[in-house]
Amino acid sequence: MTYRAPVTDILFTLEHAAGLGRAREEGVYPDLDGDTLSAVIDEAGAFATDVVAPLSREGDRHGARFADGAVTTPPGFADAYRRWTAAGWNGVLADEAHGGQGLPVAVWAATTELWASGSLAFGLCPMLTHGAIEAIEAHASEELKERYLPKLVSGEWTATMNLTEPQAGSDLALLRAKAERAGDGSYRISGQKIFITYGEHDFTDNIVHLVLARLPDAPAGTRGISLFLAPKVLPDGSRNDVVCAGVEHKLGIHASPTCTMVYGEKGGAVGWLVGEENRGLACMFTMMNNARLGVGLEGVAIAERATQDALAYARERRQGRANGSDGAAPIIAHPDVRRMLLTMRAMTAAARGICYRAAVEIDRSRATADPAAARAAHERASLLIPIAKAFSTDVGCEVASLGVQVHGGMGYIEETGVAQHMRDARITPIYEGTNGIQAIDLVTRKLPLADGETVRIEIASLRDVVRRAAEANAPELGAAAPRLAEAIDALDHATAWIAAASRSPAEALAGATPYLRLFALAAGGAALVEDALAELRAGEGALGRVALARFFAENIATGASGLARSVTEGAGALDGAAAEAALAS
Amino acid sequence: MTYRAPVTDILFTLEHAAGLGRAREEGVYPDLDGDTLSAVIDEAGAFATDVVAPLSREGDRHGARFADGAVTTPPGFADAYRRWTAAGWNGVLADEAHGGQGLPVAVWAATTELWASGSLAFGLCPMLTHGAIEAIEAHASEELKERYLPKLVSGEWTATMNLTEPQAGSDLALLRAKAERAGDGSYRISGQKIFITYGEHDFTDNIVHLVLARLPDAPAGTRGISLFLAPKVLPDGSRNDVVCAGVEHKLGIHASPTCTMVYGEKGGAVGWLVGEENRGLACMFTMMNNARLGVGLEGVAIAERATQDALAYARERRQGRANGSDGAAPIIAHPDVRRMLLTMRAMTAAARGICYRAAVEIDRSRATADPAAARAAHERASLLIPIAKAFSTDVGCEVASLGVQVHGGMGYIEETGVAQHMRDARITPIYEGTNGIQAIDLVTRKLPLADGETVRIEIASLRDVVRRAAEANAPELGAAAPRLAEAIDALDHATAWIAAASRSPAEALAGATPYLRLFALAAGGAALVEDALAELRAGEGALGRVALARFFAENIATGASGLARSVTEGAGALDGAAAEAALAS
Repeated sequence: MTYRAPVTDILFTLEHAAGLGRAREEGVYPDLDGDTLSAVIDEAGAFATDVVAPLSREGDRHGARFADGAVTTPPGFADAYRRWTAAGWNGVLADEAHGGQGLPVAVWAATTELWASGSLAFGLCPMLTHGAIEAIEAHASEELKERYLPKLVSGEWTATMNLTEPQAGSDLALLRAKAERAGDGSYRISGQKIFITYGEHDFTDNIVHLVLARLPDAPAGTRGISLFLAPKVLPDGSRNDVVCAGVEHKLGIHASPTCTMVYGEKGGAVGWLVGEENRGLACMFTMMNNARLGVGLEGVAIAERATQDALAYARERRQGRANGSDGAAPIIAHPDVRRMLLTMRAMTAAARGICYRAAVEIDRSRATADPAAARAAHERASLLIPIAKAFSTDVGCEVASLGVQVHGGMGYIEETGVAQHMRDARITPIYEGTNGIQAIDLVTRKLPLADGETVRIEIASLRDVVRRAAEANAPELGAAAPRLAEAIDALDHATAWIAAASRSPAEALAGATPYLRLFALAAGGAALVEDALAELRAGEGALGRVALARFFAENIATGASGLARSVTEGAGALDGAAAEAALAS
Repeated sequence: MTYRAPVTDILFTLEHAAGLGRAREEGVYPDLDGDTLSAVIDEAGAFATDVVAPLSREGDRHGARFADGAVTTPPGFADAYRRWTAAGWNGVLADEAHGGQGLPVAVWAATTELWASGSLAFGLCPMLTHGAIEAIEAHASEELKERYLPKLVSGEWTATMNLTEPQAGSDLALLRAKAERAGDGSYRISGQKIFITYGEHDFTDNIVHLVLARLPDAPAGTRGISLFLAPKVLPDGSRNDVVCAGVEHKLGIHASPTCTMVYGEKGGAVGWLVGEENRGLACMFTMMNNARLGVGLEGVAIAERATQDALAYARERRQGRANGSDGAAPIIAHPDVRRMLLTMRAMTAAARGICYRAAVEIDRSRATADPAAARAAHERASLLIPIAKAFSTDVGCEVASLGVQVHGGMGYIEETGVAQHMRDARITPIYEGTNGIQAIDLVTRKLPLADGETVRIEIASLRDVVRRAAEANAPELGAAAPRLAEAIDALDHATAWIAAASRSPAEALAGATPYLRLFALAAGGAALVEDALAELRAGEGALGRVALARFFAENIATGASGLARSVTEGAGALDGAAAEAALAS
């Protein structure tokens, strides 16, 4: 199936649902006028459509292959990567001082969606490099910055994040990898890391590994972890003591090598400290917002591509009569198929709205001079990030699965290509913090931000959207305003319940996942309504965004009350001897 | 991971939630005392655990292979099939007159779940044979019965169902395969059929194909379709003019060959009519209830196996502290993981309860002498069948996906084996009538049964369960009774809305899928409560079934009100120019 970059949708949602237009008026984007933005997205869309998207199927079929410590990526990948870096796409976000374009996060977010729609496996490599660039920019010594940033920003080299070990996934306190001081300011790293994305490949001559490890005298737990930079090739041209010991055989993203990396089999890999000793986790947190947003955008990306494929098939495939059709009608005419397709499109657009809004808040936090306002924007972004990550990746999986269903039996045949979306999508709720971890982050760290003021302001802003929708008094919006108002009431109620002084942590955690979903239904519904109101104001076109907002509010946001109940009344069922017995093997 | 047949759960749910105990008292099961039932399930459980389940992983990895018209199944499959037939499992349901054991549908249902848990790909072959046996028993001539039934019942030969053609999937009116009268009472069949499960294999010497085709003078559409029996090997020992032209490369069930079958390349495959000319669809309807129930049970089966795997992993894997644990706690101790595991277990048990209850109603319809009562039972079963098929297969997919999530990164690695459950499960909402078709069947054909009396009685019986739950006054049930009462109210309301005289078909169809889910939440919740009440009456054990019923009512059935709204208020958003614009490419 052919992917076509949804440039118009992306620009519209950035401008309205994400609030980039308003932020521009506030002065958040002094260097980004509408024409520049549109030219950049347009060009990225063309590259994603013409160069990246065609890689996807063969990348899945062929996969990344491992032999003798080397990884061969599928045909076309290395060449596409070189064309992509040559076109300057790798440096979109990075500081101009290091050769980047210094464009806003909102632009990076849009381009990230586009690469991931083209090929999730392809887009992963630069996503990891970007994370490393951020960490190095923020925490590395000037010497390391000078040595590594220019080539990472240009894309001549790529980077990896080495966190996970067999016994330490979500729980980094259990890390065992070691680092010893070499006496010359460098360190010697040893240990095994798993699930390292693009830990080895044939795109570039060098790969810069960022590695979490413990110093000999480090405290136990997460306060004893340090971050190191260990390149595959050392400055003197010799190979560092780090090798890829194999790649995983995965459900999806076959073209992306998921490597086991072994450090220090010959005495220790040479590495340099990034940030301070024992402060490695703090360095990781620096890049966490963007990294999690990036994974959320992968969910949007796969949902978009799956939706395009399903729509194309549903217009072509004819089965059964509908609306008094003469012969067999295209299946898009059947109400049940329409419900699936509208669900796909509405969920995708809602997730996109949330992700892009988080991106604009990050930009606002960076561009705002007033420290209090900057902090408020940063906290607003931090509140939205776990929702953007978890909801969007769940949407990616759900929409990809619906896409298979729309295709019927053909969807189950690999050659059709839509089962791949489902397989590829399934990693996104897992990596970069499982969606359960995101929900816990939302409930335990984000709701208390600014003493609860951050979430209060967010909910008030959702109510403002609904108020404007009610005032618009547009029959085309159906019952969008009242349904969404109910969803926000449910969110408000559940938020207050979690924040109650009497609430035990276990009770709050028990409802974290339904709470996050509830938040996303309210925020996603509001994002769609924001776009719909803009479409109504423009007073032209066939009001497709209005229809999406209405569909979402009347058919999807209606789940809010049930979710709120799970949050506020569901915890009791999770504990005690009877629940234990229910989980007995 | 090791599968252990859930014999105790199956027997308990059959007895209570499915109402087999009550039916036995009514005389529905004169030949099936509790000891016999338990001995049969126990033995089947041992076979599924010891012989079938170990095939699953290698079957996935190796897959069925095609070369020169022949299909080779993975190592161990053919041998296991022979042991399985030798043990008599193929004939469980078939009439004793043809060598079967004539056991009730409830027993067949339980064993069907067990084989499919062991290996979905393995269990598919006999499921197709059973469907053919049913059709032949009901509609074939005595000559055909004598010639084919004994060997199909013993399992010496297998059978297939040949419906789908490239242009005709859900819409059989579009079938083009042809049959011509040969003048000697036989027919010559030609055409191409796709997606034919076990159309070719190496288990047996002969394969009996049931084929839908059109006679030259047949009316257009579904009233011009006839059913034929065309064996791979003719009675004189020669090969019939039917060949396998290839097998599909699928997302899952790799060990099950999904064949393209070509009939009549050398002048026409010899076939014999089953039933009357142009009445082929009616013959198919005969076996539809059992076939759809069988697929629903596949959903239960995969959900069960995925749940067992996730529970085992969650007890073993340690990450993060919980409940003031000293070191890292097993992840089952974390509230969010417990929510996933309880969701998996509760959804599986609810789906099982619905499927088994449908089976008992089929048995009641067969065993009841009074024609009116028999018809009522048949209609009750017919009402439940689309719910059993669609809900259980959706549950299979959802639970298998949760199983991957519980495993974190390990879940995405194919060697772990749990991604396979997700891949295997994904076909079940598609074949044997997509779940959309099931929802349409429920709304358009089943709700009107007996002028609405069938669904009224069903809803009344759900209310009766809730009434007894409220009377039990057991604190362990939490708010199960009131939450379930609300779900049934929502179902009642949505049912009345659909049945309203003023309702247009398009409006009713638009809400068919959320309506089916709503029905399943109410019926599944009631099934769990029925089991819970039995556990409370027994007054022993740790009340795991009570905990499951409570969890489901308080955390899952709470979605009912939102679903009811989608049914009664959601249709407007699906149509019109704006919705059309929302679906524009």
